Amino acid sequence: MQNFVYYNPVRIVFGKGTISSISELIPKDKKVMMVYGGGSIKKNGVYEQVKQALKGYKIVEFSGIEPNPAYETCMDAVKIVKEEKIDFLLSVGGGSVLDGTKFIAAAAKFEGGDPWKILSECAEIESALPLASIITLPATGSEMNALAVISKKATAEKFALCSWKVAPVFSIIDPETTYSLPRKQVVNGLVDTFVHVLEQYVTFNVNSPLQDRQAEAILNTIVEISDDVLNKANDYESRANFFWCATQGLNSLIACGVPQDWTTHKIGHELTALYGIDHGESLAIVLPRVWEYNLELKKEKILQYGKRVFDISGKDSGKTAMKIIDTTEKFFLKLGIKTKLSDYGIDSRDAAEKISARFESRATKLGEKGQLLPKDVKKILLNC
Amino acid sequence: MQNFVYYNPVRIVFGKGTISSISELIPKDKKVMMVYGGGSIKKNGVYEQVKQALKGYKIVEFSGIEPNPAYETCMDAVKIVKEEKIDFLLSVGGGSVLDGTKFIAAAAKFEGGDPWKILSECAEIESALPLASIITLPATGSEMNALAVISKKATAEKFALCSWKVAPVFSIIDPETTYSLPRKQVVNGLVDTFVHVLEQYVTFNVNSPLQDRQAEAILNTIVEISDDVLNKANDYESRANFFWCATQGLNSLIACGVPQDWTTHKIGHELTALYGIDHGESLAIVLPRVWEYNLELKKEKILQYGKRVFDISGKDSGKTAMKIIDTTEKFFLKLGIKTKLSDYGIDSRDAAEKISARFESRATKLGEKGQLLPKDVKKILLNC
Repeated sequence: MQNFVYYNPVRIVFGKGTISSISELIPKDKKVMMVYGGGSIKKNGVYEQVKQALKGYKIVEFSGIEPNPAYETCMDAVKIVKEEKIDFLLSVGGGSVLDGTKFIAAAAKFEGGDPWKILSECAEIESALPLASIITLPATGSEMNALAVISKKATAEKFALCSWKVAPVFSIIDPETTYSLPRKQVVNGLVDTFVHVLEQYVTFNVNSPLQDRQAEAILNTIVEISDDVLNKANDYESRANFFWCATQGLNSLIACGVPQDWTTHKIGHELTALYGIDHGESLAIVLPRVWEYNLELKKEKILQYGKRVFDISGKDSGKTAMKIIDTTEKFFLKLGIKTKLSDYGIDSRDAAEKISARFESRATKLGEKGQLLPKDVKKILLNC
Repeated sequence: MQNFVYYNPVRIVFGKGTISSISELIPKDKKVMMVYGGGSIKKNGVYEQVKQALKGYKIVEFSGIEPNPAYETCMDAVKIVKEEKIDFLLSVGGGSVLDGTKFIAAAAKFEGGDPWKILSECAEIESALPLASIITLPATGSEMNALAVISKKATAEKFALCSWKVAPVFSIIDPETTYSLPRKQVVNGLVDTFVHVLEQYVTFNVNSPLQDRQAEAILNTIVEISDDVLNKANDYESRANFFWCATQGLNSLIACGVPQDWTTHKIGHELTALYGIDHGESLAIVLPRVWEYNLELKKEKILQYGKRVFDISGKDSGKTAMKIIDTTEKFFLKLGIKTKLSDYGIDSRDAAEKISARFESRATKLGEKGQLLPKDVKKILLNC
């Protein structure tokens, strides 16, 4: 096991009817900006529940945070935060709204020039407005982590930031808020959760049996419940279990003391930024090809994962590993997501050229050992 | 799954050579009381490492916190804390030293009369001194939780307190500090960890597949590594994995949204308070008999545990469950711990009378549904 620091102070309030507890969690003297997206929370009743719970607070609303939240939109919010002297941000919606809120919280206090530097140059976040979330989409884990991913429309770029200064003070997870989600978002969330876990788990062995099993706990649960999650309308139990998997999948716990490989996410972000495909779709396309390309390095963990999650084993380790990759891809397909660039009308040569050129210009190295250069990314994308 | 709140702000610094990081974690202007036990830290080099790391701080030392830390000893420390105007406590040692430190932190700020009320009457802890730990024994999980168990010599009583106000600001876990532990303490730690997990897991089914698997992750890892932990001298990897299991076993995570049954611990505390046996020993004696007594209520989870941890299954659910209980007891025996009161020269009738009378006087109800009355505890103890 490698040395590590683990720290996660986010308070999780989980379960039916928990939205009403906001008033116990936000000090009464705060002026709150309620940040949300395109208005789905007005259709599913969440907006009304939040407004009811916030009675007595001074509130300013900011709507219109889009999927893959845009720097430009967030900066509009920052302007209002400053004008209105907002001192608490409440994100109401999915991971995109929350990621946007995290960036707003940091940008409103940033004194180093253009806040885009927080993303493009990893400029340090020295302080941020306090924020919390009512999270309504099981997927990103943003409700219990220090991460946010923001896109810039002007340049079609997408970058992540990481700072505990922008982690939610608390997150409320009421699984009932997911009942009205479109099927496509549920599928994307299942794939996103599954891939988050795989990118912290399928690397090389450092003798971390507990972390491995904690990762497999999430993977096995997702495999077990995915049919119910997709096909049983308004089934509280499967939605609750799914949400807890999503939260646990990216809250730093399973990453303790182990190598990580975020290649699939890094390439996926570029595909979303350039071609507009969903985040979950980009992951399902890239992950199997990243594994094939790094087969020798990842083989031991792929074999363990295949045995413990899909009960696949065999004498020929290479063939067995390839069968496990194929089974993973088939699992994505079974959930209802496509796994080839061509399925989305994207030319793999175009993607390979553009994305490897971007990584070249940024001197990006990927992989659990920094072993993947832009030329390797090019080859991986040609196989996608 | 049941509704829950999860909150755990303890920073964990884990790995080789991490003790030197204290100076980055405690503000320089703090006057620190270094709290420790009987002096084992002077033999294994930990004392020197801590003193070195604390150079430049004002330090007062308080030694002599005993196993099953005594209220009386802690109150001696409280007196010095007040006289010396200490504003930070650093526990250096195992769970007993840390539990004592937690009580000292609360008692030093307690304004409701005799601080024993915090334990005997669950008086609320409104504030406490900040504290941190260098933890050297994998067992109690105290390094990442809000719990402390304190004994009163005068009355042979042992009670727990629970408050996040006394959770460590940070805990440093360097697995190398465990190399010098006596074998008996390692065995006790393995059993304590195993039973912590079982008491949060083997209850009744509330459809919590992720929490179940997170619990099984710890149990399976303990079963897998226990031989190396016990028999390979100075094996960093197995000690590191054991320590992370112990920490994860009682940090609130696997308890999220599930029923808990602390009957074994509650009865065990009385056995320790009355007869002086080790905490781990008391657990190994009581747990199998608690399970037999509550077989119908726990059967479904016992069968799941037996299948997933010891690969035991069978057609007759009752016989299979009994076999699983027997296997659990044999696992304790294999670790090197005895499982009968008579092994320690304790008369089961005496224990049954005394402990059920105590529970009667306190109107104690135990079990995951509050189903166990003092008369049930009496029967359980007669079987021990």
